[in-house]
Amino acid sequence: MAIRFELLEKDIAGRLGRLQVGGKTVHTPALFPVVNPHLPLIPAAEIQALGADAIITNAYIFATSERFRGPALEQGLHRLLGFDGVIMTDSGAFQQSVYGDVEITNRETLEFQRSIGSDILVPLDIATPPQAPRKAAESDLSTTLERIREAVEIAGTDNLAAPVQGGRFPDLREEAGKAVSGMGITFCPIGGVVPFMEAYRYRELVEVVLAAKRGISPAACVHLFGAGHPSMLALAVAMGCDVFDSAAYALFAREGRYLTASGSIKLDEITELACPCETCRRRSDEDLKEDPHRETLLARHNLAITIIEMAKIREAIREGTLWELVDDRCRGHPRLLDGYRAFLGHAEDLEAMDRASKQRFFYRGGESCLRTEVYRHHRLLRRIQVSGRVLVTFTGKVPPGYDTVLFFKPPFGPFPAELAETFPIGQSEIPPWDREMVARGCAGILAMMDGHAGAHFTVVCKPGWENLVKRELPGAEVQVEPL
Amino acid sequence: MAIRFELLEKDIAGRLGRLQVGGKTVHTPALFPVVNPHLPLIPAAEIQALGADAIITNAYIFATSERFRGPALEQGLHRLLGFDGVIMTDSGAFQQSVYGDVEITNRETLEFQRSIGSDILVPLDIATPPQAPRKAAESDLSTTLERIREAVEIAGTDNLAAPVQGGRFPDLREEAGKAVSGMGITFCPIGGVVPFMEAYRYRELVEVVLAAKRGISPAACVHLFGAGHPSMLALAVAMGCDVFDSAAYALFAREGRYLTASGSIKLDEITELACPCETCRRRSDEDLKEDPHRETLLARHNLAITIIEMAKIREAIREGTLWELVDDRCRGHPRLLDGYRAFLGHAEDLEAMDRASKQRFFYRGGESCLRTEVYRHHRLLRRIQVSGRVLVTFTGKVPPGYDTVLFFKPPFGPFPAELAETFPIGQSEIPPWDREMVARGCAGILAMMDGHAGAHFTVVCKPGWENLVKRELPGAEVQVEPL
Repeated sequence: MAIRFELLEKDIAGRLGRLQVGGKTVHTPALFPVVNPHLPLIPAAEIQALGADAIITNAYIFATSERFRGPALEQGLHRLLGFDGVIMTDSGAFQQSVYGDVEITNRETLEFQRSIGSDILVPLDIATPPQAPRKAAESDLSTTLERIREAVEIAGTDNLAAPVQGGRFPDLREEAGKAVSGMGITFCPIGGVVPFMEAYRYRELVEVVLAAKRGISPAACVHLFGAGHPSMLALAVAMGCDVFDSAAYALFAREGRYLTASGSIKLDEITELACPCETCRRRSDEDLKEDPHRETLLARHNLAITIIEMAKIREAIREGTLWELVDDRCRGHPRLLDGYRAFLGHAEDLEAMDRASKQRFFYRGGESCLRTEVYRHHRLLRRIQVSGRVLVTFTGKVPPGYDTVLFFKPPFGPFPAELAETFPIGQSEIPPWDREMVARGCAGILAMMDGHAGAHFTVVCKPGWENLVKRELPGAEVQVEPL
Repeated sequence: MAIRFELLEKDIAGRLGRLQVGGKTVHTPALFPVVNPHLPLIPAAEIQALGADAIITNAYIFATSERFRGPALEQGLHRLLGFDGVIMTDSGAFQQSVYGDVEITNRETLEFQRSIGSDILVPLDIATPPQAPRKAAESDLSTTLERIREAVEIAGTDNLAAPVQGGRFPDLREEAGKAVSGMGITFCPIGGVVPFMEAYRYRELVEVVLAAKRGISPAACVHLFGAGHPSMLALAVAMGCDVFDSAAYALFAREGRYLTASGSIKLDEITELACPCETCRRRSDEDLKEDPHRETLLARHNLAITIIEMAKIREAIREGTLWELVDDRCRGHPRLLDGYRAFLGHAEDLEAMDRASKQRFFYRGGESCLRTEVYRHHRLLRRIQVSGRVLVTFTGKVPPGYDTVLFFKPPFGPFPAELAETFPIGQSEIPPWDREMVARGCAGILAMMDGHAGAHFTVVCKPGWENLVKRELPGAEVQVEPL
């Protein structure tokens, strides 16, 4: 039973989808919590009860464990772990990237994964570290692609995940994405990104992920391998990632860290558990700090809020408010803000993927000027037919003598009356004008002037804005409407 | 037993405090959930279990209810409601503002409130609506102050709340604050603000509250009467409000609305309950929509997340990260962003109230340039002694020939090496420089140049920044450090 992936809704480059594997369904974007049989902090059945449709575990651990190898082969993973949802298995590639070598071949891990009944099999790919030079990244990628081809021969494409590597090089990532999509594989993890996230190198993460996405077929389910901190999930989804795994909930718990939607805090520095989850409501901070099962309780809180963050992201896509959630989460850390700004730098391209109409456009600060909806409006302006004397009025007053009258709403810019009620003009809420949004609106006027060289543009602006408007629109006639 | 209020910690103008009334303690900032005996959606005991130390109810309802008047007088409020925390009672002033008149006098309500054992008594003040002209606001204020004076005679100052009115006029609000503080009253509700909040007039709300706060003694506990939507609590606390009441949790539930930290959503438009609270975890969105107790369940969720929001705010004050929380919440709605920008406009004054050292300064966008810490640094710069040839280096390189060497970190601006490790220079995290923060840092250089007319300033900046720096610093010598 092949992996099937169906897209239901989109927002920016993010997607709401349905992943079907072996008759089981996962609603994406989805978190696959990592289950380590050696450290069973939270039983898989409880993870399912918390709202996870799928988990990921490491086949290499089962394959090399005297304790677990036999039972896994005899009972199968689902029975052994007590989980009837989707189980994905990693190959040992993670251990290989940490220890340099593993005692398993590509063929062995794939055959073992199949024998224990894994729903999604991963070949033994090579994760190139960010600091690796181009030659190494090329060679690793070539080996990874060879192993994926071998994996197709061994296990077919039906249940195979094909990791996309390429280190820090966007062109290699794009090439890798094209190569795996060319093999007809529906499930594509973007690998080797954990070091970027651990070092808060979100700007590079954005470049690498967007490059991989350019190569991968839009019909494929994209897994961001090793990503699971709630603060970056919204951004990752907005880039078009559908599945996350990460052991963050457990790793942070081991370090005594309490996750929030925007970061983490050392439990010892907390005075109040400001979270409505069951774990936090049933006890005080002191009870939690002194509980002998503190690590398990922390892991339960961490997992609960990560699963809730995925639900918030899915709701945001349904509503068409994903930009708001991304903007919110990315301001949680300056390095994430940097990644967000890098992402906004691609908004002109992302516009082609974004949906046409949304519930609303809420202005949340200067960054909102660079949203896809603004680019789309500017693109539309180039296609609107205007000629002769064109008025752009900031005040809404319309003096006689113009062939075309356009109104003005920043950060979008000029718009004809017939667009006043449509998205985004009619559904956008902005605070009193600020310089950044007015300048961006002027860029809309400029886009229009560029496309209509024969027309004569007059801008009638409110008092106080004339200098900014004149600076932004060197070729236009600017008048000030007296109050 | 008089109301006592003790301040434990501060952040911006927000305070962590301990309010003691009748031997009972409330940790502020605190929410006093509104309990209406006619609509007991959530029993007071359960409200207490959710984490509220205090509630507010309306004495007028008890005084005029055939069903409740007798039992309230016989058993007292605490026994009747089954709540052993602090109970504050409103006077009937709210009904008066809605219906124009009430069947109770100031004396009657105060004596009744005392008879039923209220912990905090409110006189029959007059809430001036925002649209009321100055004359009406003055006259209402004068009546309110008379009634407070009468209340002092009737009930003493020990358990008395003295409402601060004044309509939309900042000078009247400040005068009112001074007047009630002059009477030695420790508990001051800022009244008549609900219409501002209902109409999203957050900019005016900020002006009115800050004006009242300028008048009220800093030692008094300040209650923002009728405020309780989680999205605006952080901003209100940052202005120096300590207590909130509001029936928002119940009113929104009645309208089928589901509260979040940044707004509310119609339950019917929700597909997933993206919240870890018990109410949401125990059922699906469909179960909740179809539950015969849907209103109660919604109220329970709404109250739970509002109480958690207060806990988050208290934690933020302890950490010294309240600016981050305010910035986060205020971007949730463009009108709240407008209120936030109005608040930032007062940051130079707020600086005097803010604490000296915090855990960190995270840059969250252009608005962060106007934080109190930036003003404080600029004020400090005026006091640093420099003379002769002063170098401000953006790159860290120090050529010979200067009497004073200063480094540069936006948005703060120049700093001497000995401040490199202290707050905020050493504990601030910023993304790659943007124009807004560099311009703000230049304002720091300018502040320094203003204070040291005899010195000659040379700014050595990174390539690409020279035009901005020259524009911001007309009097300085600007050099570019080649890469």
